[in-house]
Amino acid sequence: MIELDDVRAAARRLAAVAHRTPVFTSATLDQLTQCRVFLKAESMQRTGSFKFRGAYNRLARLTVEERRRGVLAYSSGNHAQAVALAAKLLEIPATIVMPADAPSIKLDATRGYGAEVVFYDRYRQDRLAVATELARQRNLVVVPPYDDPDIMAGQGTAALELMEDVDGLDMLVVCIGGGGLMAGSSTAVKGVDPSITVVGVEPAARDITRRSVEIGIRIAVDVPATIADGLQTTQPGELTFEVNRRHVDTFTVATDAQMIAAMLLLFTRLKLVIEPSGACALAAVIAGNVACAGKRVGVILSGGNIAPDRFAHFVTAAQAPTG
Amino acid sequence: MIELDDVRAAARRLAAVAHRTPVFTSATLDQLTQCRVFLKAESMQRTGSFKFRGAYNRLARLTVEERRRGVLAYSSGNHAQAVALAAKLLEIPATIVMPADAPSIKLDATRGYGAEVVFYDRYRQDRLAVATELARQRNLVVVPPYDDPDIMAGQGTAALELMEDVDGLDMLVVCIGGGGLMAGSSTAVKGVDPSITVVGVEPAARDITRRSVEIGIRIAVDVPATIADGLQTTQPGELTFEVNRRHVDTFTVATDAQMIAAMLLLFTRLKLVIEPSGACALAAVIAGNVACAGKRVGVILSGGNIAPDRFAHFVTAAQAPTG
Repeated sequence: MIELDDVRAAARRLAAVAHRTPVFTSATLDQLTQCRVFLKAESMQRTGSFKFRGAYNRLARLTVEERRRGVLAYSSGNHAQAVALAAKLLEIPATIVMPADAPSIKLDATRGYGAEVVFYDRYRQDRLAVATELARQRNLVVVPPYDDPDIMAGQGTAALELMEDVDGLDMLVVCIGGGGLMAGSSTAVKGVDPSITVVGVEPAARDITRRSVEIGIRIAVDVPATIADGLQTTQPGELTFEVNRRHVDTFTVATDAQMIAAMLLLFTRLKLVIEPSGACALAAVIAGNVACAGKRVGVILSGGNIAPDRFAHFVTAAQAPTG
Repeated sequence: MIELDDVRAAARRLAAVAHRTPVFTSATLDQLTQCRVFLKAESMQRTGSFKFRGAYNRLARLTVEERRRGVLAYSSGNHAQAVALAAKLLEIPATIVMPADAPSIKLDATRGYGAEVVFYDRYRQDRLAVATELARQRNLVVVPPYDDPDIMAGQGTAALELMEDVDGLDMLVVCIGGGGLMAGSSTAVKGVDPSITVVGVEPAARDITRRSVEIGIRIAVDVPATIADGLQTTQPGELTFEVNRRHVDTFTVATDAQMIAAMLLLFTRLKLVIEPSGACALAAVIAGNVACAGKRVGVILSGGNIAPDRFAHFVTAAQAPTG
């Protein structure tokens, strides 16, 4: 388990390097949801998502010997870019294992931060096996995407900032993939004020944390069919699950269509670019899946890394006539 | 002419009602432009553009008798929404003259602020004639979109905020349509520090202010073919021209393709939704049309009102193979 002090220590480590992301409000959104919504725009964090917080906090705590060896992360998404930038800032060699068919925009971004990219064939090879073998051969420190106390504590700094910047929050709504952002956020919230309700949101196609908490063991599923590519984890993390089952008050879901609707509202009214995973928590609030009437509700928009052509595709899909 | 004190007085009027819009920076953008760029996101101003500043400043200065009569504005764009919201906040009846085929998103937004919308046929009727006749019949006060001292002074508050929030600016780059934003901005800049270079950017398809300043009289053109729908004014304003010819140091242009490139960079790297007109000033900087190497450059992103489907259309256009 991590404690509020771990999150506070992470915040001190991040103070000079991470952005203090802005908080946005919208009269339209408040009217629509019948509550007062405060949006924490982690899309504007360095590398475009909250992942930089955890990655930097983890890397900053490596020993001198570990730094010399270098780090390895396996991800085609936001964690890859986060580790690559954190490693660059701390002058640590970084190796990122990515599928050979990863989008060039993500490949270029990761290489742009100076990381070495090693490809694997995601149809023939197991990512974890490839990464583990490579780390062993090269003697690299593996940086896990969420199931790590320093990663969790780092992610929690977003919620800490939100509570500092907005007085009297009644509720915090956070998406859950592997559960790192939620583990850090819920630890921060319950540590500062246990009366604040913590709500976890998962894609409707993959509500594994909710179901795991219900039965008390971590269930595993196949890769779920959801547009929220940042929330496609197939099992709750071992550590994150223990934190989240204790701190999260309520679980709910949002469908892909609800995420797209939230993305479009964020685009048209708040002028914010948010990726599907990043809109998941807000989508549940807008859809009426969170009992928030009259409350002051913090919502974390976890990231904004979506290519313009993918966004354009969602716009077209949202406008297609439905049966 | 207006003076710095007029802009400062406008800032006091706006303090409690307008957003102090955030300023964004990007390491990628700095690397690309070889200067230090500070982006003032007026997309995040109320109603989604800088226009609220001028409209509110104008309406706040109406007499009690004028307020009772009500106001009229003719616009299908950002000025309409700005006047509608300012009127609502000041409890003044507002009438907006709009083309019958105005996009429903803009119509709904204007009506959402409580304004009465009167349509005209833009293929058969002259907008100014319709508006003037209606104002006469109903005894309404016409709120011009730019050619008015209070409108100009209000728009200048964006530049004033930027100079307060960013130390040691060397240059300010601002788009020019009717010239109201530039008139206010350049007055503010030259009033605070005449050594700051002021650069005006127009669509390449319509560089009428540059050409008018060169020959010393306001030239008029047909409605220009540019995607920058906020900058399609066919002649510089009478008052704005006098201010801008005196205060603007350099004029340059940006093409439609350069505006789209800037919009896509703002989307992918800054996670900001900016409309074509709003990206015009930055487009010129990125295209290398502004001599800014090594300088600290303020750029106003003037607005973010673009429908998702229009944005999607630009993405597709940008990716189409070019001959």
